[in-house]
Amino acid sequence: MSEAFQYPQQGIRLTVDAVVFGYHSDRLQVLLIRRKYAPFEGQWALPGGFVAEPESLEQAVERELSEETGLKINYLEQLFSFGEPRRDPRFRVVSIAYMAIIRSDNMPLQASTDATDAQWFDTQELPPLAFDHAQILEKAITRLRSKLRYQPIGFDLLPEKFLFSDLERLYSTILDQPLDRRNFRKKILSFGILEELSTKVSDGRGRPASLYRFDLDRYQALQHENFYFEIP
Amino acid sequence: MSEAFQYPQQGIRLTVDAVVFGYHSDRLQVLLIRRKYAPFEGQWALPGGFVAEPESLEQAVERELSEETGLKINYLEQLFSFGEPRRDPRFRVVSIAYMAIIRSDNMPLQASTDATDAQWFDTQELPPLAFDHAQILEKAITRLRSKLRYQPIGFDLLPEKFLFSDLERLYSTILDQPLDRRNFRKKILSFGILEELSTKVSDGRGRPASLYRFDLDRYQALQHENFYFEIP
Repeated sequence: MSEAFQYPQQGIRLTVDAVVFGYHSDRLQVLLIRRKYAPFEGQWALPGGFVAEPESLEQAVERELSEETGLKINYLEQLFSFGEPRRDPRFRVVSIAYMAIIRSDNMPLQASTDATDAQWFDTQELPPLAFDHAQILEKAITRLRSKLRYQPIGFDLLPEKFLFSDLERLYSTILDQPLDRRNFRKKILSFGILEELSTKVSDGRGRPASLYRFDLDRYQALQHENFYFEIP
Repeated sequence: MSEAFQYPQQGIRLTVDAVVFGYHSDRLQVLLIRRKYAPFEGQWALPGGFVAEPESLEQAVERELSEETGLKINYLEQLFSFGEPRRDPRFRVVSIAYMAIIRSDNMPLQASTDATDAQWFDTQELPPLAFDHAQILEKAITRLRSKLRYQPIGFDLLPEKFLFSDLERLYSTILDQPLDRRNFRKKILSFGILEELSTKVSDGRGRPASLYRFDLDRYQALQHENFYFEIP
């Protein structure tokens, strides 16, 4: 290894960026920040910033989100690292991107300390994004779609109690394709990871429908039994 | 964003590390380098090193592999970035780890310029590894297993022409579980992505068996037709 006797000087700087998804009004939303300064002054960008020395990468993401948006996230996973030499016009910046999810009842934005503006955008109606952030967002949407099929991550986007029709709409909206509703219902219910609550509410067409809750304990127990969550 | 008026000094350095898999003698193998210098002098580690300013992350991986092992890889994908503040005893180093695959007919090692020793190890019989490299390797094995189920990545590990029984053994070895051979055969052949060659050879039990070749063109064409490679 060539670092042996002399440690090469590196001018590379390290940032974290976060693609924060929320789900509201039957639309997949993403949280964006309007940049105060150059480069890309006034443009929308993913929240993020430089990693500080003593913090882990996840701590850096959580700190930046809290500073820029005041939001606390429900789910966080590392997405991908973006390191093309000229992705930042100032100097070389490698960004470790994360995908985060905020439950819809946690979505309201507080006044932020560090950005002129933080706002939710419908992922189908986006403004131009700074840097390579459109590419980062695209990768996150692909990851989210693929995770929806083999991990019960959709429940992190819904409120704690939901109608089955809410879950159906979430899947067809995010996967951006019509759902075979009968098979979907049969498949999801066969997993035994939904608890049907005694409360019934109108499903929007006037008919009384059950509220459901995702049973995390049951799901975790099933994972020890060779159970695969999978939506074809 | 707090980088607006002053760019904070960062003492973080950036490396790439590679988990290079090969498949030989019915075993999943990984390529390790014996470290010449402190820290972890004389211990085995993943090949890797510091990213140079003008190169992309993938170029850095390929350069380090070539310098340290003389090997050229057949497949490369980004695995995960490891950034715990104290993972390197010298200073803070964030490592972007990659998973690479070398086809078994490409595996021989040449004399390397930059490491006292580079060697293939059976992943079931590993020496202690430097830094957090055991954790990086574990993540790579998990990724490889999961990819085997939904991407025809196994063919990147086999020689170009192989017996069906070779493919079966590769799956059961890497997934580390017995295979339902009849279903596996039926499933794989149903995809129509294997070309059966006219050459027949002994399958090791004296019976003549066909050689197969993975049909990459056919697989790529199928991907435009909502085809999912999937091994249950």
